[in-house]
Amino acid sequence: MDKPSADKKTLDAITPKSQDISRWYTDVVLKARLADYSPVKGCMIIRPYGYAIWENIQRLLDAEFKKTGHVNAYFPMFIPESFLTKEAEHVEGFAPEVAWVTQGGKEPLEERLAIRPTSEAIIGHMYAKWVESYRDLPILINQWANVVRWEKVTRPFLRTTEFLWQEGHTAHRTHEEAKAEVARMLEVYRRFVEEDLAIALVTGEKSQKEKFAGALHTFTIEALMPDGQALQSGTSHDLGQNFAKAFDIKFLDADGERKHVWTTSWGMSTRIIGAVIMTHGDDKGLRLPPRVAPTQAVVIPIVYKEAAPVLEKSKQLRQRLLDRGWRVHLDDRDGFKPGWKYAEYEMMGVPLRIEIGQKDMEKGQVCLVRRDTGEKAFVPDTAFEAEVERLLGEIQKNLHVQAKEILRRRTFPATTFAEFVEVIKEQHGMADVAWCGQAACEDRFKAEVGATIRCLRDASPHHPCVVCQGPASRQVYVARAY
Amino acid sequence: MDKPSADKKTLDAITPKSQDISRWYTDVVLKARLADYSPVKGCMIIRPYGYAIWENIQRLLDAEFKKTGHVNAYFPMFIPESFLTKEAEHVEGFAPEVAWVTQGGKEPLEERLAIRPTSEAIIGHMYAKWVESYRDLPILINQWANVVRWEKVTRPFLRTTEFLWQEGHTAHRTHEEAKAEVARMLEVYRRFVEEDLAIALVTGEKSQKEKFAGALHTFTIEALMPDGQALQSGTSHDLGQNFAKAFDIKFLDADGERKHVWTTSWGMSTRIIGAVIMTHGDDKGLRLPPRVAPTQAVVIPIVYKEAAPVLEKSKQLRQRLLDRGWRVHLDDRDGFKPGWKYAEYEMMGVPLRIEIGQKDMEKGQVCLVRRDTGEKAFVPDTAFEAEVERLLGEIQKNLHVQAKEILRRRTFPATTFAEFVEVIKEQHGMADVAWCGQAACEDRFKAEVGATIRCLRDASPHHPCVVCQGPASRQVYVARAY
Repeated sequence: MDKPSADKKTLDAITPKSQDISRWYTDVVLKARLADYSPVKGCMIIRPYGYAIWENIQRLLDAEFKKTGHVNAYFPMFIPESFLTKEAEHVEGFAPEVAWVTQGGKEPLEERLAIRPTSEAIIGHMYAKWVESYRDLPILINQWANVVRWEKVTRPFLRTTEFLWQEGHTAHRTHEEAKAEVARMLEVYRRFVEEDLAIALVTGEKSQKEKFAGALHTFTIEALMPDGQALQSGTSHDLGQNFAKAFDIKFLDADGERKHVWTTSWGMSTRIIGAVIMTHGDDKGLRLPPRVAPTQAVVIPIVYKEAAPVLEKSKQLRQRLLDRGWRVHLDDRDGFKPGWKYAEYEMMGVPLRIEIGQKDMEKGQVCLVRRDTGEKAFVPDTAFEAEVERLLGEIQKNLHVQAKEILRRRTFPATTFAEFVEVIKEQHGMADVAWCGQAACEDRFKAEVGATIRCLRDASPHHPCVVCQGPASRQVYVARAY
Repeated sequence: MDKPSADKKTLDAITPKSQDISRWYTDVVLKARLADYSPVKGCMIIRPYGYAIWENIQRLLDAEFKKTGHVNAYFPMFIPESFLTKEAEHVEGFAPEVAWVTQGGKEPLEERLAIRPTSEAIIGHMYAKWVESYRDLPILINQWANVVRWEKVTRPFLRTTEFLWQEGHTAHRTHEEAKAEVARMLEVYRRFVEEDLAIALVTGEKSQKEKFAGALHTFTIEALMPDGQALQSGTSHDLGQNFAKAFDIKFLDADGERKHVWTTSWGMSTRIIGAVIMTHGDDKGLRLPPRVAPTQAVVIPIVYKEAAPVLEKSKQLRQRLLDRGWRVHLDDRDGFKPGWKYAEYEMMGVPLRIEIGQKDMEKGQVCLVRRDTGEKAFVPDTAFEAEVERLLGEIQKNLHVQAKEILRRRTFPATTFAEFVEVIKEQHGMADVAWCGQAACEDRFKAEVGATIRCLRDASPHHPCVVCQGPASRQVYVARAY
């Protein structure tokens, strides 16, 4: 792992999460060395400890993409302005936040180039070149890349001008196939975020107002942060034939006709790391889910008199876990008291602490301390590996249980607009309300309390529209959002 | 693997390598679907088959970086102009090829932003923030990223405006430590390129004229392409204290003094894929080294009458190799003759072809065909996995042997300038010559035949300078370069 700071400055108290979650978030991000501010406005540096989380996310997600038949590729980050403007809604949605390259070397460019805010335009252009017959379909390509959206207000991970993501772009013969792909990838996201990141989610379709610029339908997974703000954590778009028509992506079908393909796109970004931090952290700092924690367990030798045997034993314990494929760190630095180290790794969210001293050795035991609950257990040396495995599994599950509980406690039904306002402003929660489907009512959520429809629910509404009290067509989740 | 084209168009003859290596290269890149041209001048699309090679390269190199103690991070791709200009040689070297962002969203920027051509400047700025005491050193960080250099003449992989690479950036307490790092990473590159990519290399220091802009010393691994042009394949830079002084990266040493750190940087890019293509390909197309080939073996069922048993057997063979961890593809498509498939996978450079038909099954044998030599062998079914493993090892070695032979045959000593000119212009080779060390003589290489010193050799010169015939100080390799 990235070495903890040599100086003691990182042990400065972080603002308690319960006191000011916003300052807590910034403190933790900086002090756990997940990220740092950069001299370029709105951009962050993802430091090694934060990047190691991203590497774990990449590894797990990439394996899922490949299992579902996708391959990776890389497209240029420059998109000629004329491409971006081909799909009308798309350019309208993204133009306000594009960074423009206007000069290459010493020469001004004839046509300015957008730095990709997303790659539908350049990829659509290429697919039109590549697709000839129905036998060329489906195209199932994913890209890991950086993207830029010129944001006014930014926060590390949650909203940055440049961020890292993956974007899947697929082309299909029929709309049915494309819709199945959209659903499949939403489910990949949902399962990954729930199971590997231990975050609780609601999922569903976006309203037409909130959908991706250029999509027919957008589906989303939404997490709810402990401050009551929702975080869009991954989206999967049914693009219909909008981009196929804009970029003329056609194929010769078996019936001899030339038809437009049906495309999809789906993405998840480094902002999900922000959700991990927010969801699980506590007053002491981070609590990282074992499946993506850069260090799953840290071994801390407790040395009083003779150091050598304890250090030797510590190395053995470390090796026994490495042999089982766990990510383990041994902190055998001199000159730092065990208690200081405990606080340091608690702040860094390492799921399990392993303490070993002379007395433990004599008793044939090892001391294991859970980061999630603080529980301490002495386990027989012979059961060491099995207990570590069991506890890491328990911690992963417990974080998810706690996250689901927070989601449940922060989600409130509301039948009148006054109740709705109270949910958002007083309870700092997410409202589960009936909606008539009219844009005018949707606009009121934003106008009154700065909230938006996070997603449509599958459930049928049993009440009139929470805004106009007219007949409701959908049940929806409404919240403020990052 | 990326599916081969459904249409037969890719089987159009490619220009023989022996006839026109430049057209051959373009044909192979496009027809094997490694890459495609993009609508943005100088940028390419790395298609799935090409990107899968890059993924293998990343996986292998990244493991080496981690073994040598490095961690990954991510820095912003935007570099404020004022940062780039802090190190005088650095800006002079890179400014002519920088792409500039001048507008973000609707607003012109106050200071224009360079898209990183390399990241010493932004990373130097951050290291200055992060380093306080000698205990914070060394910093051993690597970054996988895209970079942009506004090139006038481009070719897929070999020279593109945007490319992918990794850049290591380290900071050390002493110059000795930094120099050891520079040597260590050059050796990581050398071994990777020789052993995993099967490319033959010469290695050594760059001349002062050819070194990285801002470095004290640059060390390089250089491959020689079959057309006699050298390809700089990886570089490792001793940056001395140049960037430490420009960005004020200081640490408090154990003796209580504040000192500047010593930094290094080192990089390898997607251009190395160009070297793989150029070095190993033949008239039939690619020949990929097994260690980085996206598909190491392809199984082709030979069906005459009854298809089912042969297809069943083919699947079993595929599975037996997958179980051993090999990357295997089964091409069981109907409607394509085996001979057509053979040519297709030969063009795509798959190292080993596995043919299986009814007759083979009756005889309890499998037919294996090497892509590198075309040799065909029937092996007992019981020895199948072992033979595949042995042959893939043989192919890997043989490609390296052949590459070393080409390097040997294309490298010529020269003692007079006329001989030197002949080596470059007539023999299309690399010259191994003595040099006095004067820039004026170095300039003649370029002025006369467009060649440059590729690297200094360790060997002592036994002749006078090949240009001025004065006393020589170094033996050097000189060649034209991509």
